[in-house]
Amino acid sequence: MNASSPVEVLQALIRCPSVTPAEGGALTVLEDLLKPLGFAVDRMVERDVDTPDIENLYARAGTDGPHLMFAGHSDVVPVGDEADWSAGPFSGEVRDGMLFGRGAVDMKGGIACFIAAYARLVEAGKVPRGSVSLLITGDEEGPAVNGTVKLLEWAAARGERWDACLVGEPTNPDTLGDMIKIGRRGSVSGTVTVRGVQGHAAYPHLADSPVRGALSLAKSLMFPAFDEGTENFQPSNLEVTSIDVGNAATNVIPATARFKFNIRFNDHWDADSVKAEILRRLNAAAVDPELRPGRAAIAYEMVWSERPSHVFLTRSNSLISSLSGAIETVTGRTPKLSTTGGTSDARFIKDYCPVVEFGLVGQTMHMVDERVSVADLETLTVIYQTFIEQWFAHADA
Amino acid sequence: MNASSPVEVLQALIRCPSVTPAEGGALTVLEDLLKPLGFAVDRMVERDVDTPDIENLYARAGTDGPHLMFAGHSDVVPVGDEADWSAGPFSGEVRDGMLFGRGAVDMKGGIACFIAAYARLVEAGKVPRGSVSLLITGDEEGPAVNGTVKLLEWAAARGERWDACLVGEPTNPDTLGDMIKIGRRGSVSGTVTVRGVQGHAAYPHLADSPVRGALSLAKSLMFPAFDEGTENFQPSNLEVTSIDVGNAATNVIPATARFKFNIRFNDHWDADSVKAEILRRLNAAAVDPELRPGRAAIAYEMVWSERPSHVFLTRSNSLISSLSGAIETVTGRTPKLSTTGGTSDARFIKDYCPVVEFGLVGQTMHMVDERVSVADLETLTVIYQTFIEQWFAHADA
Repeated sequence: MNASSPVEVLQALIRCPSVTPAEGGALTVLEDLLKPLGFAVDRMVERDVDTPDIENLYARAGTDGPHLMFAGHSDVVPVGDEADWSAGPFSGEVRDGMLFGRGAVDMKGGIACFIAAYARLVEAGKVPRGSVSLLITGDEEGPAVNGTVKLLEWAAARGERWDACLVGEPTNPDTLGDMIKIGRRGSVSGTVTVRGVQGHAAYPHLADSPVRGALSLAKSLMFPAFDEGTENFQPSNLEVTSIDVGNAATNVIPATARFKFNIRFNDHWDADSVKAEILRRLNAAAVDPELRPGRAAIAYEMVWSERPSHVFLTRSNSLISSLSGAIETVTGRTPKLSTTGGTSDARFIKDYCPVVEFGLVGQTMHMVDERVSVADLETLTVIYQTFIEQWFAHADA
Repeated sequence: MNASSPVEVLQALIRCPSVTPAEGGALTVLEDLLKPLGFAVDRMVERDVDTPDIENLYARAGTDGPHLMFAGHSDVVPVGDEADWSAGPFSGEVRDGMLFGRGAVDMKGGIACFIAAYARLVEAGKVPRGSVSLLITGDEEGPAVNGTVKLLEWAAARGERWDACLVGEPTNPDTLGDMIKIGRRGSVSGTVTVRGVQGHAAYPHLADSPVRGALSLAKSLMFPAFDEGTENFQPSNLEVTSIDVGNAATNVIPATARFKFNIRFNDHWDADSVKAEILRRLNAAAVDPELRPGRAAIAYEMVWSERPSHVFLTRSNSLISSLSGAIETVTGRTPKLSTTGGTSDARFIKDYCPVVEFGLVGQTMHMVDERVSVADLETLTVIYQTFIEQWFAHADA
């Protein structure tokens, strides 16, 4: 295999069926590619009582600073119904300029391009003065318990320090060069259980409908909006993702109603302040008589999800400008600096060093016939190569 | 057994475990009591594809008019956990002046009092000039498909005509003599399914939350009130009895949300007009942007429950005054003429003749340790006897 060919590296990775939590041979492919390029490779299995064992990989070339990290994941989501694919999901088949397979864009493709970029620097005798490392987890698409968090702790414990990180997730909505992610909204979830008094639907005064209470509380979380957005972020948004009562009897007012919600919040908030605002709204709505005239306050219980995702915004100009400059140089496009979308492992990395995200076009991620154009793989390889050179040039300056 | 003793008759009925749909021997007890009192007794089994077979009874004494019907049911609700009862639920045990057993008040007790009342008239040589009939179903606590509706159709088909009906359901909230039911609200139920567009909670603009739609629609049905009540009825009231989404994933906006509702409506409405008002509210809320700014109208589907209960109000002064007068004569109390509460089989009977309801005190109905005081059984027997005499006196006048 030619390490400087992103197509060949990606095909080798796709042929490893590394659906979370399976390693599937993908980390062995990486180890075999990275060692000849001068990387010291560590692989470790992380265990936890509640989730499957996960194998992760950390590789570093160089011993001194400055130190640039590339982070990603070798695991992929399930293929769905294999019969729906027009090419085998683990085939890596190239047809009409498109390379097919689960993980093609999310994100074995990004890993392949970064390795190819580094291999080309090695071939050109341009190995960066400093260190480059790869932090590759097998638990990004799963519960993320045994993945990047533990890998970072393990590496930090043995003295690893990084100056910047590039996450290779697919960030472009339509065309390569569209978008860099320079931050992410935070995420908090919770479950609200409303206690009422069961009774006959014909005698509502003897009962206390928890459905009325749940509607009032749920509405208070969705309206009005939490904010109108900030300089770098879109507005925070809360969705009630489920309401469940489970009452089959038409003539019975039930005893409890439960709803779940998730808020994606911007840097106007942190996890604590957004929780406080949620409780403030619930407590205000609990005494709002609109749907329950003449009633006592709504009795409810809140259970927060265990681990909130914290909001972050990268403020490293050198990191952003190196990446943005490389994209402009290679594609002629000026990427949007965005903080939209879901969470990624960048939320963990931001506690160690500035982090940005840039990878392939995400349109087919998680879908049947996930695929990437060979042209994009070549372009991203050149962008990554240019970025590495520009970032080290900045760091030297 | 002494037919003029309501305690003995009730004990015999309670000892028949006639939990819907089982006849349990109760109708045989009635047949054996009624024939010696001069009743012609018919028993028939009603069948339907979707519900259990049900046995019903119709008994008539006399052949001419005027014709007074007593309507009731011999079936009872399940006993729950028998271990929670302080006396066997089918024992009819009397302790400290209370007779225990499932059906004691709802409504084997009412049947026992009516039979005892009639037996006392027979003993006293005061058999009414005209006809008295009993219409007893075994399907009041069940789906009511094979019960009173079919029994009325069967009797009407063979030429039975009635001038008035007394339903012996427990109508008194606290004390015997509190309340006559002279009408009932109507009842309509429905299920609303809201269709949205599934998506990731972090990209709400690409999805369309059906939870937001369901909350808006559900609120429009509960607020504002449908009316403020009428001369004879309390305000109409709608309860959303369940909302169900069933979405386990915190980060996913679901595709559909479903809610069920039940409205108890007064004589300001009929089933058709209340349905039209419900649809008017839903259609207005569907285009209300409050919780879904900038969105197209909420897409929803309505499925009405199969059989609405129609609202009715009895306007027969002679029937009401005979019953009310008998209660005042015997107890010294002036009963409230009420239209509150749930539906009863009176909703079917009102299509054939004026109907009122009066029976025992309902406090323990459907509960563990359902029970009635022996004193109340004696009082109700005297009330029923007096009522029969007064109603025929009115009818003769």
